[in-house]
Amino acid sequence: MTIQEIRDYLARFVGAVELVGKVDELISGPAKIESAQIGQVSFIANDKYARYLATTEASLVIVHKSLSVDEFSHRTSFLKVGDPYTAFVFLLQKFATPRTIAHKGIAISAVIGEGVTLGEGASIGEYAVIGDRCTIGSNVVIGPNTVLFQDISLGDNSVLFPNVTIYDGSLIGKRVVVHSGTVIGADGFGFAPQSDGSYVKIPQMGIVEIGDDVEIGANATIDRATMGSTVIGRGAKIDNLVQIAHNCRIGEDTVIAAQAGISGSVTLGRQCMVGGQAGFAGHLELADRIHVAAQAGISKSFLEPGIALRGYPAQPMREQLKHEAMLRNLGAMRDKLNLLEAELKELKNS
Amino acid sequence: MTIQEIRDYLARFVGAVELVGKVDELISGPAKIESAQIGQVSFIANDKYARYLATTEASLVIVHKSLSVDEFSHRTSFLKVGDPYTAFVFLLQKFATPRTIAHKGIAISAVIGEGVTLGEGASIGEYAVIGDRCTIGSNVVIGPNTVLFQDISLGDNSVLFPNVTIYDGSLIGKRVVVHSGTVIGADGFGFAPQSDGSYVKIPQMGIVEIGDDVEIGANATIDRATMGSTVIGRGAKIDNLVQIAHNCRIGEDTVIAAQAGISGSVTLGRQCMVGGQAGFAGHLELADRIHVAAQAGISKSFLEPGIALRGYPAQPMREQLKHEAMLRNLGAMRDKLNLLEAELKELKNS
Amino acid sequence: MTIQEIRDYLARFVGAVELVGKVDELISGPAKIESAQIGQVSFIANDKYARYLATTEASLVIVHKSLSVDEFSHRTSFLKVGDPYTAFVFLLQKFATPRTIAHKGIAISAVIGEGVTLGEGASIGEYAVIGDRCTIGSNVVIGPNTVLFQDISLGDNSVLFPNVTIYDGSLIGKRVVVHSGTVIGADGFGFAPQSDGSYVKIPQMGIVEIGDDVEIGANATIDRATMGSTVIGRGAKIDNLVQIAHNCRIGEDTVIAAQAGISGSVTLGRQCMVGGQAGFAGHLELADRIHVAAQAGISKSFLEPGIALRGYPAQPMREQLKHEAMLRNLGAMRDKLNLLEAELKELKNS
Repeated sequence: MTIQEIRDYLARFVGAVELVGKVDELISGPAKIESAQIGQVSFIANDKYARYLATTEASLVIVHKSLSVDEFSHRTSFLKVGDPYTAFVFLLQKFATPRTIAHKGIAISAVIGEGVTLGEGASIGEYAVIGDRCTIGSNVVIGPNTVLFQDISLGDNSVLFPNVTIYDGSLIGKRVVVHSGTVIGADGFGFAPQSDGSYVKIPQMGIVEIGDDVEIGANATIDRATMGSTVIGRGAKIDNLVQIAHNCRIGEDTVIAAQAGISGSVTLGRQCMVGGQAGFAGHLELADRIHVAAQAGISKSFLEPGIALRGYPAQPMREQLKHEAMLRNLGAMRDKLNLLEAELKELKNS
Repeated sequence: MTIQEIRDYLARFVGAVELVGKVDELISGPAKIESAQIGQVSFIANDKYARYLATTEASLVIVHKSLSVDEFSHRTSFLKVGDPYTAFVFLLQKFATPRTIAHKGIAISAVIGEGVTLGEGASIGEYAVIGDRCTIGSNVVIGPNTVLFQDISLGDNSVLFPNVTIYDGSLIGKRVVVHSGTVIGADGFGFAPQSDGSYVKIPQMGIVEIGDDVEIGANATIDRATMGSTVIGRGAKIDNLVQIAHNCRIGEDTVIAAQAGISGSVTLGRQCMVGGQAGFAGHLELADRIHVAAQAGISKSFLEPGIALRGYPAQPMREQLKHEAMLRNLGAMRDKLNLLEAELKELKNS
Repeated sequence: MTIQEIRDYLARFVGAVELVGKVDELISGPAKIESAQIGQVSFIANDKYARYLATTEASLVIVHKSLSVDEFSHRTSFLKVGDPYTAFVFLLQKFATPRTIAHKGIAISAVIGEGVTLGEGASIGEYAVIGDRCTIGSNVVIGPNTVLFQDISLGDNSVLFPNVTIYDGSLIGKRVVVHSGTVIGADGFGFAPQSDGSYVKIPQMGIVEIGDDVEIGANATIDRATMGSTVIGRGAKIDNLVQIAHNCRIGEDTVIAAQAGISGSVTLGRQCMVGGQAGFAGHLELADRIHVAAQAGISKSFLEPGIALRGYPAQPMREQLKHEAMLRNLGAMRDKLNLLEAELKELKNS
């Protein structure tokens, strides 16, 4: 791509793009600012990297519009934008080699059930199995050995990697990405205790609903509802090995890091961020934009938007950090206590 | 189904069922008491829902035998039972749409090894692979793309969902359910350290034995024993993403919630309940009916049946709650200490 | 095998092997010292088992070279070695029944992409799918229903169990073992936040590199790097359900127990041992030979080799145990504080 083509491409995503330098130099690919070579594009989003401006070999650098680059423009070209990091991410997308998850079209070995609707341009890989009455949107890609039960809806441009399993009735939006090994719609963990100590299974009759633009990592599990739906809101991002139990509702654009576990009937607000290995007790609610620290244990609802939670049982960050500081100070408390004891003894004896 | 048919069906599972109302009204399906419509069946198992008796649209409500319903029986029919919740669960099972995990019979694409015994009515899905000398019970269902190594026994009426993997020699009981992505019988994590810091693999020569009526969630892992067996007792229920290491023995009717991890050679008693993300050190034992709180870390054996454990390292609930209360009170302790210090100083100066 | 054959076999792995007893007795298999029968071989690696010398039914016992066994040699034969435990492990490997993961050769149903190089003696199971331009080493075994994307290199004698997924570009060494359900090379969890609260995906353009002699358990996840490589060093052992995020570097011979989670860009040294369910914040570093306790939360770098870490946030073992002892002693501190308060009051009043 020429610098001009990069400029035009970025302008579609990040608005105004000012070019300082050569229009038609060819750019072969992206690189980090400290290791970029001639012909490559890099970026500076953070002042501490500005020192590389004078020395980088990159032919093109994406920088913030406020950065003064004129003294370097004789050797390097620049694209000035409002958010250089995001601009570079879009550029990475442009340079990324497209991955072949499944060859174009429907593999001869793919098993397509009765009454399945296949959208235009859909690709279904070898040995994939699609249950009866599924609706597959246009340009969907389904990897090899992935299994869909019946009555599943999969929106346009969604991608299921290989070895994914989707249980019956799941409703999945557009541009959803599900990585390998993930299981969507398995039965929620519901059993009614009997007087003899055994259990009777509670049929899990609900479904899973996943909004548009959701991405789910590898080997995650999202259980179907007992009745009604487990809901993953539009734009949510769920990392590897995350567990989402029956009847949860995950808000739009909420992000959940690896190995976190959300118990049954939990509601998370929009734009929350949940750290890795965090755990939630059942039937509680978090407001919008709440941040949960890694390994935290959330044992009750928090309804104030935008707060941060930490610890076990989790409490708002400020109290928890105060608490942790007090714990670290416990030795000094003990020493002071022993000193007072000695002084008091002395005072009594005198 | 008519109300009479529901009554007859329930009587097989929950004993005496008294009908107050119409025998032959048709019931189309189940619903929650607050949203049920005419023609639907619901239940009240908890006094706080009794207020809905006067207003529900449900045509049939399952209630406790002690509940007085005569004043509502002109508009609603009732089935009076000893345990309305369990009765409703059995009714849900009746109304649940049967899921097609694999079409009846053996898919042509299924690979069946040499010397495999197939029970009557077994269904094996597309691209499933069954190793040599496996014994598959009657009415077993094996989902597409599930793989069984050799010498596996699978009892009558068991169900393996798609994309399950069972390693060689596993012995699996009757009516066992294994959800997608779960791996049973992989090698235990055993390596002998060498003087140069590297490891030699300890062959894992044992197997996994799973009792009748066990249900295992999605993406769980149950490792084979080094020698002998890893044992999952009859009726145990194991949730998604649970890890059970080599040589564990899980008691009958014990329930283990999502993402819990049981280290090697742990023995859990019968009817224990283990919370989500709880972890166990190796080679320890819990007595029967012990409850382990979510995220707890069990570092030693507890041999008193029926106790509850919590915290890290876990201790009996009462001590742990006392400990947590003391921790919450740490600020008051510090304040009192500072006050005493000031008073003592004053006293010395006077 | 005769005892002489066992001696010759072990001499290849553990050096000097002294035989006390009969050369040509036949040994049928291994057993624990307390339950061994005539014709079986066992071992004693620990003094507390030496009491079994007089009573064991085993025909052959592997012992430390310093152990005096002459008084028992009329009824039992002995092989004396420097490390009886390791010698027995090698013997277990000899007696282990070979598992058939895939039949010899390439299954007719396996899909082999264009430009794939297949080494001599490679076995590829039913319904496995191998992407274009993969290089498969000699004697590699790939289980049924395992999927490899394109441009993957898999070294000689490596074994992929069934239902594994390897993403494009992964470079995997020799003698690597990957158990079922594991996903290698899925996209790292990288999304650039936008001003409206939504996210733009950061393309994950790097790869995963796995050294020789690595073993990875079931249902683990190892993400590809954003740029460059996620690296698993030679000889590392990774247990079930472990998460290793993008751009991590795991040192040689490092061992990571089940359900541990390593956040992005973490570097672990050589010969570290990470306990189950331990978690790491991103972008930190551990020196060589560091031990991390189960469930610990590592929130910063530790650069002193050989230390042990424990707790949340984790600190060196000695401090952490001191801290935990102080916490257990909190009740005594509170009592002493109350006593001092009373004494001081009394003193003031007098």
